[in-house]
Amino acid sequence: MYKVKVFVTLRESVLDPQGKAVTHSLNALNYKEVTDVRIGKYMELTVEKSERNIDEVINEICTSLLANPVIEDYRYEVEECVAQ
Amino acid sequence: MYKVKVFVTLRESVLDPQGKAVTHSLNALNYKEVTDVRIGKYMELTVEKSERNIDEVINEICTSLLANPVIEDYRYEVEECVAQ
Repeated sequence: MYKVKVFVTLRESVLDPQGKAVTHSLNALNYKEVTDVRIGKYMELTVEKSERNIDEVINEICTSLLANPVIEDYRYEVEECVAQ
Repeated sequence: MYKVKVFVTLRESVLDPQGKAVTHSLNALNYKEVTDVRIGKYMELTVEKSERNIDEVINEICTSLLANPVIEDYRYEVEECVAQ
């Protein structure tokens, strides 16, 4: 069994209005030291072992469902777990 | 300057309908090996140095704005950057 952590972030060149809103809110709450916020997604997948390579499966899943490759980048970490 | 990565996840005991929907979609797309998905948030903050301790600031920000401590857990990583 694998635990896969997927991080999806907007590409650097893409504007992030949600992040801008959070930055403004934090500045209004008097956290003036925060100059920028970028919002992304974080997903934890539990994946059973199969005959297919885990990297191949995760890359397919990310590009087809979890991330929009036109405006988003993704990276992931795979952790192998021993089933109890 | 600090780059802070914040990960906000639903507590283990809290149901995650969005994650369940993604699990069902992946199973329908024939990725039967995916048994569970939990969705969280990922945020990258750029924080200037100030007289306040960075951990204190980030903990305050997370509990007051970025995470709902009733149903969510958060963790973060601080990376110190040299301004160019």
